[in-house]
Amino acid sequence: MSNAKKVVIALGGNALEDKGLPPTSDSQLEVVKKTADYIAEISCKGYEIAIAHGNGPQVGRILLSSEAGKDVTPAMPFDVCGAMSQGYIGYHIQQGLKYALNKRNKNTPVVSLVTQVVVEKNDAAFKNPTKPIGPFYTEEEAKKLTEEKGYIMKEDAGRGFRRVVPSPIPRKIVELHSVKQLWDSTIVITVGGGGIPVIEKEDGTLEGVAAVIDKDLAAERLAEDVGADILMILTEVEKVSINFKKPNQEDLSHMTVAQAAQLIEEGHFAPGSMLPKVQAAIKFVRSNPDKKAIITSLYKAVEALEGTAGTVITFA
Amino acid sequence: MSNAKKVVIALGGNALEDKGLPPTSDSQLEVVKKTADYIAEISCKGYEIAIAHGNGPQVGRILLSSEAGKDVTPAMPFDVCGAMSQGYIGYHIQQGLKYALNKRNKNTPVVSLVTQVVVEKNDAAFKNPTKPIGPFYTEEEAKKLTEEKGYIMKEDAGRGFRRVVPSPIPRKIVELHSVKQLWDSTIVITVGGGGIPVIEKEDGTLEGVAAVIDKDLAAERLAEDVGADILMILTEVEKVSINFKKPNQEDLSHMTVAQAAQLIEEGHFAPGSMLPKVQAAIKFVRSNPDKKAIITSLYKAVEALEGTAGTVITFA
Repeated sequence: MSNAKKVVIALGGNALEDKGLPPTSDSQLEVVKKTADYIAEISCKGYEIAIAHGNGPQVGRILLSSEAGKDVTPAMPFDVCGAMSQGYIGYHIQQGLKYALNKRNKNTPVVSLVTQVVVEKNDAAFKNPTKPIGPFYTEEEAKKLTEEKGYIMKEDAGRGFRRVVPSPIPRKIVELHSVKQLWDSTIVITVGGGGIPVIEKEDGTLEGVAAVIDKDLAAERLAEDVGADILMILTEVEKVSINFKKPNQEDLSHMTVAQAAQLIEEGHFAPGSMLPKVQAAIKFVRSNPDKKAIITSLYKAVEALEGTAGTVITFA
Repeated sequence: MSNAKKVVIALGGNALEDKGLPPTSDSQLEVVKKTADYIAEISCKGYEIAIAHGNGPQVGRILLSSEAGKDVTPAMPFDVCGAMSQGYIGYHIQQGLKYALNKRNKNTPVVSLVTQVVVEKNDAAFKNPTKPIGPFYTEEEAKKLTEEKGYIMKEDAGRGFRRVVPSPIPRKIVELHSVKQLWDSTIVITVGGGGIPVIEKEDGTLEGVAAVIDKDLAAERLAEDVGADILMILTEVEKVSINFKKPNQEDLSHMTVAQAAQLIEEGHFAPGSMLPKVQAAIKFVRSNPDKKAIITSLYKAVEALEGTAGTVITFA
């Protein structure tokens, strides 16, 4: 075992996609190569790294194309689309990182693991699905999908009807053992898109479910379970702010878990955006009071690890 | 390091798909669960296992659906479709194996690695692409694709025009280190579909290419590079035969590499079918004269390892 600090890095959407570019494979690879440069720099500083990443736009497009082609070849269920997105995104991160490491004369291995994450069948989220996925439908098509496939369809901001799926809490990373075995020597890409959500049946079978696991919560689960020293959540802003985008916005360099919980209470953090990141940070530090979480931007990641940028969350 | 025998298993198409069933995700999972039962049995006999698998039908359908949906969302290039197929198939094999191992009260870890395989830019195969992939086109559409995208299109047995890609020789498994790290403790699924084919550029970049690597040759490369004791290639028949499907068909229980090479010369093995399997077996044993290759069916795999079924290929 090495003494290097172990960091779980959760990559946000902007690390994989530039919304100004068409959503092609080429443009993803271009963005991922830039992202990889920052990660490689962290690796060169001696940190051991596991990477979690989102997959929202990518899995949405895989589903879109699968549905569009359904008269030619059977459409794939949502869990399989998630598995495919892990292959797609992981492959690009592997290529990007190898290149960035090579430029630095490093040959650190990099690999992506196809990763399942267990959720509970009784998770309250299954009673109230909220995550819209895939294409838009007319009201009539939506009704038909509900009748034929049991999909829950919701009207989406006047743009039509979309399928919604639950976002349950990640309970267990099925392939955890492999992450532990590898990350002393290897940059490991895992729990892509929050992991492929599966439930554990009584006979021991894992069964894929149509759900989306929040990737920050999955990264937190991973960080706890592998014994990471640092959970680093990368997003579009350098620091967590209160009164975000108001005249009295204040950027925070440090929060204790108690302070962070208080700010959540006060409604400072937007659901689906900063809120799950702060929640994940609190959860990690509460479980590991001697460790820390960092929320910052990709561009400030190296400095944040050195203590000169970002928002650090500690126990006290 | 353990003393267990290490076996690389190459799974053929029939291990993943039942041609009598519609090509849905559900039916693949059903077939994979049956396949997993045999692999779990091998694991329980104490062998350490890495699994290579084909992806022909699956990647073909991913490409079909990607092309069918191209007006809704950009079509994915062939290397990315291959990465997606590794996610799709790997996920199902992981589920199937966990279930089969669980039934046997084993909790051996199982994981799939997104795996790139380096091919040479100057491989002769790039001058003569032979592998048809994806949808059929009219002559006019085919011409347009050649003009616009540089695809090489060939007429396919009167059914229309299809894109053909080269089938270069696998030279190096990029993620080899992870396979070596894991397989003492873990069943590792790797080089899916022969691996995602990439070329190494002068600046160290890996770049995906539209090509199909033969999965038996990729499994052979893997078996050499990880130091496997046995290369086991599973297919639809229990033994390699000479005069296959003729009145004088003879099933072989054993071949030396010299005998196998002679039978190739005599044209006993069909290209794209038994020929690459026998070639892979010869290559492995020539590089490792004290080791052996086995060609047999999934159903006889356990017996073949015990020496009572299949065709064994040894040096002398």
